[in-house]
Amino acid sequence: MSELRGSDATGEQILSFAKQLFPMTRSITGEGVRQTLRMIQQKVPGLVIREVPSGTQCFDWTVPQEWQITEAYIEDPSGQRIVDFKNHNLHVVSYSTPVDETLELEELQEHLHSLPNMPTAIPYVTSYYADRWGFCLSHEQRARLKPGRYHAVIRSKKFDGVLNYAEVILKGASEQEVFLSTYVCHPSMANNEISGLSVVAFIAKWLASIDRRYTYRIIFIPETIGSICYLSQNLPAMKAHTIAGFNVSCVGDDRTYSIIESRKADTLTDRIAKHVLAHIGKPTRIHSYLERGSDERQYCSPGVNLPVVGLSRTRFTSYPEYHTSLDDFNVVTASGLKGGYEFVKTCIEVLEGNRRYMATQLCEPQLGRRGLYPTLGAGRIEDSVEDLLNVLSYSDGATDLLEVAERCVMPFGRARHAAQLLLRESLLRVVDH
Amino acid sequence: MSELRGSDATGEQILSFAKQLFPMTRSITGEGVRQTLRMIQQKVPGLVIREVPSGTQCFDWTVPQEWQITEAYIEDPSGQRIVDFKNHNLHVVSYSTPVDETLELEELQEHLHSLPNMPTAIPYVTSYYADRWGFCLSHEQRARLKPGRYHAVIRSKKFDGVLNYAEVILKGASEQEVFLSTYVCHPSMANNEISGLSVVAFIAKWLASIDRRYTYRIIFIPETIGSICYLSQNLPAMKAHTIAGFNVSCVGDDRTYSIIESRKADTLTDRIAKHVLAHIGKPTRIHSYLERGSDERQYCSPGVNLPVVGLSRTRFTSYPEYHTSLDDFNVVTASGLKGGYEFVKTCIEVLEGNRRYMATQLCEPQLGRRGLYPTLGAGRIEDSVEDLLNVLSYSDGATDLLEVAERCVMPFGRARHAAQLLLRESLLRVVDH
Amino acid sequence: MSELRGSDATGEQILSFAKQLFPMTRSITGEGVRQTLRMIQQKVPGLVIREVPSGTQCFDWTVPQEWQITEAYIEDPSGQRIVDFKNHNLHVVSYSTPVDETLELEELQEHLHSLPNMPTAIPYVTSYYADRWGFCLSHEQRARLKPGRYHAVIRSKKFDGVLNYAEVILKGASEQEVFLSTYVCHPSMANNEISGLSVVAFIAKWLASIDRRYTYRIIFIPETIGSICYLSQNLPAMKAHTIAGFNVSCVGDDRTYSIIESRKADTLTDRIAKHVLAHIGKPTRIHSYLERGSDERQYCSPGVNLPVVGLSRTRFTSYPEYHTSLDDFNVVTASGLKGGYEFVKTCIEVLEGNRRYMATQLCEPQLGRRGLYPTLGAGRIEDSVEDLLNVLSYSDGATDLLEVAERCVMPFGRARHAAQLLLRESLLRVVDH
Repeated sequence: MSELRGSDATGEQILSFAKQLFPMTRSITGEGVRQTLRMIQQKVPGLVIREVPSGTQCFDWTVPQEWQITEAYIEDPSGQRIVDFKNHNLHVVSYSTPVDETLELEELQEHLHSLPNMPTAIPYVTSYYADRWGFCLSHEQRARLKPGRYHAVIRSKKFDGVLNYAEVILKGASEQEVFLSTYVCHPSMANNEISGLSVVAFIAKWLASIDRRYTYRIIFIPETIGSICYLSQNLPAMKAHTIAGFNVSCVGDDRTYSIIESRKADTLTDRIAKHVLAHIGKPTRIHSYLERGSDERQYCSPGVNLPVVGLSRTRFTSYPEYHTSLDDFNVVTASGLKGGYEFVKTCIEVLEGNRRYMATQLCEPQLGRRGLYPTLGAGRIEDSVEDLLNVLSYSDGATDLLEVAERCVMPFGRARHAAQLLLRESLLRVVDH
Repeated sequence: MSELRGSDATGEQILSFAKQLFPMTRSITGEGVRQTLRMIQQKVPGLVIREVPSGTQCFDWTVPQEWQITEAYIEDPSGQRIVDFKNHNLHVVSYSTPVDETLELEELQEHLHSLPNMPTAIPYVTSYYADRWGFCLSHEQRARLKPGRYHAVIRSKKFDGVLNYAEVILKGASEQEVFLSTYVCHPSMANNEISGLSVVAFIAKWLASIDRRYTYRIIFIPETIGSICYLSQNLPAMKAHTIAGFNVSCVGDDRTYSIIESRKADTLTDRIAKHVLAHIGKPTRIHSYLERGSDERQYCSPGVNLPVVGLSRTRFTSYPEYHTSLDDFNVVTASGLKGGYEFVKTCIEVLEGNRRYMATQLCEPQLGRRGLYPTLGAGRIEDSVEDLLNVLSYSDGATDLLEVAERCVMPFGRARHAAQLLLRESLLRVVDH
Repeated sequence: MSELRGSDATGEQILSFAKQLFPMTRSITGEGVRQTLRMIQQKVPGLVIREVPSGTQCFDWTVPQEWQITEAYIEDPSGQRIVDFKNHNLHVVSYSTPVDETLELEELQEHLHSLPNMPTAIPYVTSYYADRWGFCLSHEQRARLKPGRYHAVIRSKKFDGVLNYAEVILKGASEQEVFLSTYVCHPSMANNEISGLSVVAFIAKWLASIDRRYTYRIIFIPETIGSICYLSQNLPAMKAHTIAGFNVSCVGDDRTYSIIESRKADTLTDRIAKHVLAHIGKPTRIHSYLERGSDERQYCSPGVNLPVVGLSRTRFTSYPEYHTSLDDFNVVTASGLKGGYEFVKTCIEVLEGNRRYMATQLCEPQLGRRGLYPTLGAGRIEDSVEDLLNVLSYSDGATDLLEVAERCVMPFGRARHAAQLLLRESLLRVVDH
């Protein structure tokens, strides 16, 4: 379905990049985010890393202090380190306050998090806006803890620093913008974090290499506070120019293709995403805006109201490994990432190719003398000839090519192919320059 | 589902009132109507009883003469009274001309009405606009009649008098009006008469006790001629102000909840009634306007065109006892009436609470610092928090709260509850003062 | 369903005319077309036969030379005529160039056409715009041909002549036009040719005999080049006046009733055709515009955009005998043709009767004093009374009678009958003079 142009990526390239990014300790602020953004910069020419000082007011929110962590562990009564941040960065509650205390198991339990129903998984827990400390561990391990005095150590600090994000604007022929967003605030989880930013990085690279009809605004941000922060700095320009937008998240597994509709499901972006989904030939799912959960919450909020749709393979909360240490490279694969990449790319290709055309001739043109129609009248004509006649029939200057394709019950790519042939023969003209 | 405010009624109170009203001999005019209206006056402060002289022209109709009946019976050949108006006021055809005749059974039969398929029921028969006399009796009794000479006596008269109805206008903050209508012209039948006027009387009492956003126009009228008469006197004001209206009828049984759509089923009233029905959690039925039969026939007629929907438990013609002596307090119960009362009340509460709101913050507000959102990020958030976020999301100044509720797949009451909390936190503002 | 007025036709009359027209050798030009048009002229007073010179430019097309054929046959190695145009005019490829050659069977095969899957049928093959010659024969016969030298003779010529078509404009009370088109370019095939022109000829005759609200533009043309030619000469007038149009084709068999929707299926013509189909009480089929194939291809093309729907019994390509010698009077019958005639006629009757009415009275009128409503109130009222009340209810000046009928779930004829009774009683008035 997709029409490859420019610098295209393989699944293996995306996977290799994802694996490099996986180990860093990201949160909504801090060194892990900066390392991540710097690595993306190497893939995406022109990407700029921004910083916003702690304490900056962003609409109803305030940028929190920066969080730094160097060490975190629990020692059991025998002095053995049984939980250690070095082994997995999910072991510590994100934004934990520092601690260095010896306490009874009973007291320690109040600071432990595990999942009884997923006994081998370390859960992902955060406490950005309330001071507390805590550790996460598998329920199996927790169940084995014996009474006694434990030593809990977290060497962290919060201080006035910055929140970071990165953006690139790729100018196109038109000032009209397409918006792409993904997030960079989760520690070591593969689908719900790394897949999104890896795919968007390669999409940005591809976009940089092609002739663009539209301008592209691409951002890599911490979820929620980052998108709110970005909107607080860029909303007027975005409202003036954005014609479509995609929030890309969880695009690395190989199970399904899904979208989250925009708030009222009535935008061009919704039409495009649903069309692509309908012709993708794999299991698909359409989530209503009631099932939102990522930054579409901000982009589609009433006063913001950008035409943003969520694109996912298997969406956050819909797969069992979500927000645990099991969300790793057993879940995310080269073919899963490639599928996610093609999904986003095909949506963009539809957007770029979605013009309104007008037939240049009154009545059907004589395709026969152009070698496009059989001269012998007998039996059915070929599908490719039908495509030409059908695309011509609906090219009335008012119907965009996406609607033409839908009326003709064909994938957009086939309609675009027919339109290009008809343009070459001067049987169509563009009406929406 | 309902939000109780003001002076509320129990099912027993409504039933007790209904039983008091049951025995009176109502018709489209006469003393039975006046007695009925006077009793309603005791429940509804400010209710005014009007009179319209016989012969008054009302659009295409003329107010008929008043009908008075004092006695009506049939004596069998042995002189025994076998049918007597004193025993049941359905025994005589309403608006019967006077008669005092002795006649053969064969001749008498032409004046008798019974229901072969409901052999124990006395049918309800009227002849308002053509001079005739007649008796109604059970088919069982009729089958037992032996040949011989019968004595038929009806002491009735028609004379230039008045047609009566009652109305009350309860002023609200707005001049915009909600219209409520029910009828008072049927003799002793419980569901198809008494239930409607009992429920509307208690609804009027409740409305009088609350802070009203809208003005309420509530009328108790004889069916057809009464509503035509009322419209002929009040149409311009009603067309100028009415934003919704309900024709209440047959709201006393315990079987189903149903509505009759307005003529084109495209009014706010239709939206409200269908929403309430959808969340009522009991068997429901939506009748199209083609299944109309009560005063919605007038209220929705082309030149009148008020946004009126019929509200019923089991609608006229849809239950077997309809228009017979079996429509009694075996059909109508305290819980049936209470259900009908709550149905009407909930529709009014939706109407009163149906505002358009706008979120005051750009992006999602930080609910956490208001104690409305968990500070620990782990697992699913609660439904009540989801409700706040969902109601906020659709509060864009253009979407009314009813549409917000429908988009969020929740009953209106839950959306209203969330909106009230958000208003209190200054996270919403009203945009339709 | 149909309301007969004027000069109506029987199935036998249409069949008899069809049989007279069957044998002529029609093509897109030539004597066969002229003979056909002259015979139609005898049925349709005022029909004018036009001619357009070869070489005339029509939009993207050029009128081809005229084709004349006098003789065509194949002699087998023994000199016996085994295929002869005299026996069936489908035996020669239409617009064949002349030939007089003796050639080996192997060489001859390149000029032969047959249908392996329909071994007894002679196929219909054309080559209007490329020079070639060829013969068509049954596959059974072809399979029996033995090696040897065959003599192929076609005495034909192409020369600068004319393309013919015929038209009649029947003036109505309004300048608004209804357009009817059928084609006259196929040789001896019964459903896909003769049925259409026979039915349209009798429809024209009927239209000429009635009081017409609308003006009717009726044309008999060669398919494709003829309709393009006609449009190139008449488009401005047609765009200014046409309110509905029907392309009539394949209306002679007794299997189904079908329509081909207009391009966007959003015209009055679509509404009418679908309504008639929905109440026809026989198997029906709705084809989308993607299944088009006749002159609707031109009439609905983007710049032309006339509100034209295709009417058929069993549409071209949907029946097995299509475009073969088996499309004869085993397929087309008197009852099939009569059904096709009634289908077209009923659509026209809906169009003629489709007015917007307004109730003259506010509220329901008192039907009782007009003898239209029972004076005794007991039990259900009759369907005919319901019809009056329902048609009145939706006659609000904005709703056309077709929508009234659809809202009342009745065939148009019943709504028209009720409306006529109400007009007579002055209870409706026409609002769309």
